[in-house]
Amino acid sequence: MKARVFVTLKSGVLDPQGKAIQHALEGLGFGGVNDVRAGKLIELDLAEGTSEADIDAMCRKLLANTVIENYRIEAVG
Amino acid sequence: MKARVFVTLKSGVLDPQGKAIQHALEGLGFGGVNDVRAGKLIELDLAEGTSEADIDAMCRKLLANTVIENYRIEAVG
Repeated sequence: MKARVFVTLKSGVLDPQGKAIQHALEGLGFGGVNDVRAGKLIELDLAEGTSEADIDAMCRKLLANTVIENYRIEAVG
Repeated sequence: MKARVFVTLKSGVLDPQGKAIQHALEGLGFGGVNDVRAGKLIELDLAEGTSEADIDAMCRKLLANTVIENYRIEAVG
């Protein structure tokens, strides 16, 4: 089975990478870019029968820093 | 309007970050992790009326390296 984990910074946490992307887009002439937030996408190829609870544990222990980041798990197929 | 851009490495491109995550998960005792691929998630807050073509141009010019990366655009709301 496959799963995707989306890791995003919590609102209120400064995101210098996102700001750099925003300024670069403006510098390239793209108008109307109000805000950019950068996050991570982690695609997992797991053995069949891996439970959502296991994936949740992976997120809490390694994939996301829950002090400053939120995560969302999406099972694929 | 908001849009999400998912940037992933093309298959066949080596992903040392994904491999490091895989080995770390195994080291933490999580079994059955066959493969991990690391990608990027970029959340854009754009002016109303920004076209999909504009977002596609942003991806090709800045957000993704189309030699080694694929991207997918998802409009939100």
